[in-house]
Amino acid sequence: MTGPDGTRPPAGGQPPSFHTMWAELAPVGRHPASGGYRRHAWTGADADCRTWFQEQAEARGLTYETDRNGNQWAWLGDPLGEDAVVTGSHLDSVPDGGAFDGPLGVVSSFAALDELRRRGVGFRRPLAITNFGDEEGARFGLACVGSRLTAGQLTKEAAHRLRDGDGVSLPQAMEAAGYDPEAIGPDPERLARIGAFVELHVEQGRALDLTGDAVGIASAIWPHGRWRYDFHGEANHAGTTRLADRRDPMLTYAETVLAARREAELAGAVATFGKIAVEPNGVNAIPSLVRGWLDSRAADQATLDTVVAGIEAAAHEAAARQGVDLTVVRESFTPVVEFEHALRDELAKILGGRVPVLGTGAGHDAGILSASVPTAMLFVRNPTGVSHSPAEHAAEDDCVAGVLALADVLEGLACG
Amino acid sequence: MTGPDGTRPPAGGQPPSFHTMWAELAPVGRHPASGGYRRHAWTGADADCRTWFQEQAEARGLTYETDRNGNQWAWLGDPLGEDAVVTGSHLDSVPDGGAFDGPLGVVSSFAALDELRRRGVGFRRPLAITNFGDEEGARFGLACVGSRLTAGQLTKEAAHRLRDGDGVSLPQAMEAAGYDPEAIGPDPERLARIGAFVELHVEQGRALDLTGDAVGIASAIWPHGRWRYDFHGEANHAGTTRLADRRDPMLTYAETVLAARREAELAGAVATFGKIAVEPNGVNAIPSLVRGWLDSRAADQATLDTVVAGIEAAAHEAAARQGVDLTVVRESFTPVVEFEHALRDELAKILGGRVPVLGTGAGHDAGILSASVPTAMLFVRNPTGVSHSPAEHAAEDDCVAGVLALADVLEGLACG
Repeated sequence: MTGPDGTRPPAGGQPPSFHTMWAELAPVGRHPASGGYRRHAWTGADADCRTWFQEQAEARGLTYETDRNGNQWAWLGDPLGEDAVVTGSHLDSVPDGGAFDGPLGVVSSFAALDELRRRGVGFRRPLAITNFGDEEGARFGLACVGSRLTAGQLTKEAAHRLRDGDGVSLPQAMEAAGYDPEAIGPDPERLARIGAFVELHVEQGRALDLTGDAVGIASAIWPHGRWRYDFHGEANHAGTTRLADRRDPMLTYAETVLAARREAELAGAVATFGKIAVEPNGVNAIPSLVRGWLDSRAADQATLDTVVAGIEAAAHEAAARQGVDLTVVRESFTPVVEFEHALRDELAKILGGRVPVLGTGAGHDAGILSASVPTAMLFVRNPTGVSHSPAEHAAEDDCVAGVLALADVLEGLACG
Repeated sequence: MTGPDGTRPPAGGQPPSFHTMWAELAPVGRHPASGGYRRHAWTGADADCRTWFQEQAEARGLTYETDRNGNQWAWLGDPLGEDAVVTGSHLDSVPDGGAFDGPLGVVSSFAALDELRRRGVGFRRPLAITNFGDEEGARFGLACVGSRLTAGQLTKEAAHRLRDGDGVSLPQAMEAAGYDPEAIGPDPERLARIGAFVELHVEQGRALDLTGDAVGIASAIWPHGRWRYDFHGEANHAGTTRLADRRDPMLTYAETVLAARREAELAGAVATFGKIAVEPNGVNAIPSLVRGWLDSRAADQATLDTVVAGIEAAAHEAAARQGVDLTVVRESFTPVVEFEHALRDELAKILGGRVPVLGTGAGHDAGILSASVPTAMLFVRNPTGVSHSPAEHAAEDDCVAGVLALADVLEGLACG
């Protein structure tokens, strides 16, 4: 059985487990008003997702463990064996995120294992399914904390300094969730035992919708980063302060938002101000501080540098004109990730050669791990192209195609 | 003794009580990090201010009461007498406000009474000092709730619908503070017994600083209002959504902020976006909703209408261009307030004729009450011109001049 192209109906249809798993996860952390998910790291909703993962592992007789960084693992075969094939994704969400970003990869991993057992294949390499913690960075502002720690791309000390919007530190949050924040750190021995990591993910754009394919293979992740812009003005009364006497940082922020769009358009990149914090945030008060976060990404480093520099220059020019003090801090940065060509080609061969290969602007745990482990990604078509929103979607047939493609890949890598 | 112009040193210098009262109030509700005040209606800091007011009343042998709307009154003479002279202001603050806006008027009222007693004058009219509740509207988004209710400009039903940012309703907050939310409503009998209301307030601009006067008299309060702009876009992934596919409400908001400044500049008015709420407010998410609040004021109604219409038209034009849905709701509005000319002229006469008369863009309880009661205001010089910020200020000599001017006014109205 092969066929992400959907032309050949899968024998046996949808793996029976997929529907059940999806229905079990559906209510966890869903906000009744927005309809979106709020599964933020180390919260109650996150704990419920983790319990669900452990139950799935145990129901299949897999060896369950959490690593030193709180990432979850479910092993078929020896967890200490060499050249393991690992698949999985994450279960946490952005604020009011959709159902697919993350969970589709984890659910499809278990469903693909069920499919392989149905096929009766034998395994010559250890196989693991993972749930990486805090991929979205929604709570502490840094994405892929679990995989970054494991790969040594985030130090224990830096992780301990992370705080959420309520001032709760990452160690406090981990401890409250029953994990040991003193244990966190790099895990090179674990990574050395992994021969291949494959992450299945819902597509976050419309490339597959435009080509008419259910499943694609990732070529690269665009370089991307987050910059915090602090615009310091002077708090004052909105009714009594003459315009000429104002140092209003909201004006500088507004000019910078528009400059970001302009620079991104000129370069064929993306740049977004989606998060803001204002002090004192009163209707009749000129703000003392407007803090805005820039997210920017481009197909290559030089283009991204141009965009980011252009936005920063425009912001400084506006700030100087308006008597506003501006500081810009780069909060995170991930260089371009080219997924390993050999593994990518092997996937394409397994899947029959007709599978589109596409780049993406989104970061993933697979991108972090690719510095340490041969890594590949599969994307499942998202007809809306919408992501990080309840409107993200994958059709049932495409989810099935994704499971079967992942099963084919795992069979090709770990069996035979 | 007269002399707000400061040329004649006040006999006996600063009333001894002023310093003590100011020092007692100074730490209440002060935020250690910002240095600003957070004395929001019906909070613990507000309760502490109210206790202080009651203690001041009782220490002076005044008759203390709260009215049905939770405003505080301290009476010298018969609270049920006719033609009373009332002075006072408010003790609550905007978020991270300064020390003077409100408290200067209340402290000066007690100090002026002390000064009159020192002078040994007799009173032929009842005198009251007041603290009006929730003047700033920092918590429930509507200013002057205490005086509006009393003057019948806010109904009990509408007040009961007010909610703070945490979803706590005004009735819940009043009840938690030990007040009866069922009792609130208009109080025409009380207002009918007032012959004059005089509010002393720190100036919220630099007019007195420019004329070189310590004290001024208010002519009028500009018409002003608050409008809520809801920009609805489509939440999406900031890294993977093509610019052409976006419906990003942050862009429309930014254009509207700049349009507001432009329209206000053209008309010689003021317009400010100082408060914002964004959903989901994630670094890597294009917002689904940006909600911004416009505060706008002008010297006359026609000018204000032109400014507000211009901003709204620009916002709708940008929204249509960007695929964003926009709704604009007027949340509050106060027409121009001309303070009673007879009382204003009487104050000018009492104060010696050399006192500047100035308009203001700020709303006050005095503006609300002026619809029901002859009302006047005194302003004390604020050399920074800054307001609603810890940087607002009045020099000690100017505070003394304000107390003496208020004492002169009260003596002229209630004694002799």
